[in-house]
Amino acid sequence: MSAYRPIEYADASLQVRAVFDDIKRTRQVDDVNNFWKYLAHDPPALKRTWESIKEIMAPGALDAVTKEMIYLAVSVTNGCGYCIASHGAAARKAGMSEAMFAELMAVVGMANETNRLANGYRVPIDAAFER
Amino acid sequence: MSAYRPIEYADASLQVRAVFDDIKRTRQVDDVNNFWKYLAHDPPALKRTWESIKEIMAPGALDAVTKEMIYLAVSVTNGCGYCIASHGAAARKAGMSEAMFAELMAVVGMANETNRLANGYRVPIDAAFER
Amino acid sequence: MSAYRPIEYADASLQVRAVFDDIKRTRQVDDVNNFWKYLAHDPPALKRTWESIKEIMAPGALDAVTKEMIYLAVSVTNGCGYCIASHGAAARKAGMSEAMFAELMAVVGMANETNRLANGYRVPIDAAFER
Amino acid sequence: MSAYRPIEYADASLQVRAVFDDIKRTRQVDDVNNFWKYLAHDPPALKRTWESIKEIMAPGALDAVTKEMIYLAVSVTNGCGYCIASHGAAARKAGMSEAMFAELMAVVGMANETNRLANGYRVPIDAAFER
Amino acid sequence: MSAYRPIEYADASLQVRAVFDDIKRTRQVDDVNNFWKYLAHDPPALKRTWESIKEIMAPGALDAVTKEMIYLAVSVTNGCGYCIASHGAAARKAGMSEAMFAELMAVVGMANETNRLANGYRVPIDAAFER
Amino acid sequence: MSAYRPIEYADASLQVRAVFDDIKRTRQVDDVNNFWKYLAHDPPALKRTWESIKEIMAPGALDAVTKEMIYLAVSVTNGCGYCIASHGAAARKAGMSEAMFAELMAVVGMANETNRLANGYRVPIDAAFER
Repeated sequence: MSAYRPIEYADASLQVRAVFDDIKRTRQVDDVNNFWKYLAHDPPALKRTWESIKEIMAPGALDAVTKEMIYLAVSVTNGCGYCIASHGAAARKAGMSEAMFAELMAVVGMANETNRLANGYRVPIDAAFER
Repeated sequence: MSAYRPIEYADASLQVRAVFDDIKRTRQVDDVNNFWKYLAHDPPALKRTWESIKEIMAPGALDAVTKEMIYLAVSVTNGCGYCIASHGAAARKAGMSEAMFAELMAVVGMANETNRLANGYRVPIDAAFER
Repeated sequence: MSAYRPIEYADASLQVRAVFDDIKRTRQVDDVNNFWKYLAHDPPALKRTWESIKEIMAPGALDAVTKEMIYLAVSVTNGCGYCIASHGAAARKAGMSEAMFAELMAVVGMANETNRLANGYRVPIDAAFER
Repeated sequence: MSAYRPIEYADASLQVRAVFDDIKRTRQVDDVNNFWKYLAHDPPALKRTWESIKEIMAPGALDAVTKEMIYLAVSVTNGCGYCIASHGAAARKAGMSEAMFAELMAVVGMANETNRLANGYRVPIDAAFER
Repeated sequence: MSAYRPIEYADASLQVRAVFDDIKRTRQVDDVNNFWKYLAHDPPALKRTWESIKEIMAPGALDAVTKEMIYLAVSVTNGCGYCIASHGAAARKAGMSEAMFAELMAVVGMANETNRLANGYRVPIDAAFER
Repeated sequence: MSAYRPIEYADASLQVRAVFDDIKRTRQVDDVNNFWKYLAHDPPALKRTWESIKEIMAPGALDAVTKEMIYLAVSVTNGCGYCIASHGAAARKAGMSEAMFAELMAVVGMANETNRLANGYRVPIDAAFER
């Protein structure tokens, strides 16, 4: 089956179903997103990626909504349409209000601008910031 | 004077000094970073960029440390060495602990990875995420 | 005619047709891809790009499928939807199996992740890797 | 200790040493690269990243040198100086000749060029490449 | 209202209408583009971004068409579909001919290629270019 | 010889010298930049890249300084340190004043910002811009 088709639960191997089940249980959802249905073409990658994400996105020193907003900031910077849609939804589910989203976008936009101003003016790192 | 040299306060125009003064007052620092000393070659850009950053980075729906961490996430994604150094320092000053930094980096790394997995598998946006 | 419309063989100049003919002959295909039909708006660019690609993609120290997989790795990293689709197809035609594709994606994802970890932790280049 | 300092084996926790030992054993090297010494500031990330890389970079449907060349192609596209240096060295160690490197660079350069030509001309995906 | 919906003039606040009116007056258009209708979800960002763009894009040392072509060059490099479409139209309106567009694309493509060749070969900056 | 070392004229093959001579003649310079001395490790790439650049950068519908500014805009967006230095110098040599440089940087910065705002707000392309 082409890697450009989703693998639905009914058609999945036991190995893939085990990951799908853990995603559904952890996130309290009825079905997994398309991302996982496509990555299921590579069962070890599916398992490795899910376990990494589960560990990374669990609340710790940063809470869930902050982590989702950072995920969204990266996705917007890279222009990944799928990830902007899915992590935008995830951030909102985790508590991102429209006001928070607006401020997030403003910071992301400004950072992308000043990154290039620093590049273009060839600004050397201040001694105070050096390792 | 070449745009690749810093403009120090002593050599700055009144217009540039006014911005430098406002940066120092707002941030409670003795001198401005190199970024501003280079951007001072374009006084309207200096003023416009500072006023935008002052407005955007002020605590609102997101607090100062969250904003600085988002700035850092973008800078790391773009690989801007200057901005990684300066906003890393700014985030720490605003309260980012080493544990928070580690979690931030883990999210940034994972987002950059899954952005490409979504691209490569050509994952279509789930109906639930559509506008 | 707008550059955002394809130029079909029937409407093409002799100069453009000569390139289209060489693409079809070299690749053993009945028609050229949209990429070439759009680039045909700039006949010198069409000729220059095709001749460069023909030279670069010919098997040499690297075989055809390896070259197409590298092309795909770059396109996925940049998020170019057209190129992911066209070079994904080209890589499969050149012999990339689904297992090879899965491993390619895993490497591309991991490289995009660790590129940012190296940026974020400001890792200095080991002396052993220095020029 | 600042995340911008390496953690040497002598100063590392048992948890970190266990990962360092596995890297040294797997790669048959006397010391780990700076990348790992910095990532050691986040022991779970160190372990997770190493285990993922060990799994991903093991020869499978693609051999070791092809995987290292793909890693290098991504790093060059992203402009990650550290990764270009370290994976350039790793690819050569895995068997990449200067001729292979030259062809790799030519493909990476051309892909980065045509990715933008496809963007700029707004080339629609050919029906033949559609899912 | 979701940030993923446009705010039309009839539904806009007085603050947003004032910006829309200034855009329409400045650009001599009957309606504002979707970009502004979405950014209107964050009225301070709308005002700040418009005032910055009005200042930056006004003819000065560079004329309007050159500025729009530079905008397009950046958007093509980043792969921003919306911006490629809107600034392609704006550049044409400002006087970019098809011949100018073709040359612009050729330069953008070549720059994206040689940026990576310089990265990959780890070319050190010539003393003559040093600050 | 390692690809990470320059090939000087005295050590170059006749094939490489022919390209170096043409660069020096065309650009009226005494020596070629490091870029060419490194690319000389791949003589066909050296010849192909130089001939493409010579053709692309020749004044046509766009003049030399505009082309160099576009090259610089792309290099700044990609964060290629070498290319920012070399094409900054080339643009100045072709006539870019400090005022033109400042306006160029302002446009590049703003485009990088609004590219991300368009991504983040998921702005759909206006019907007027559609093909």
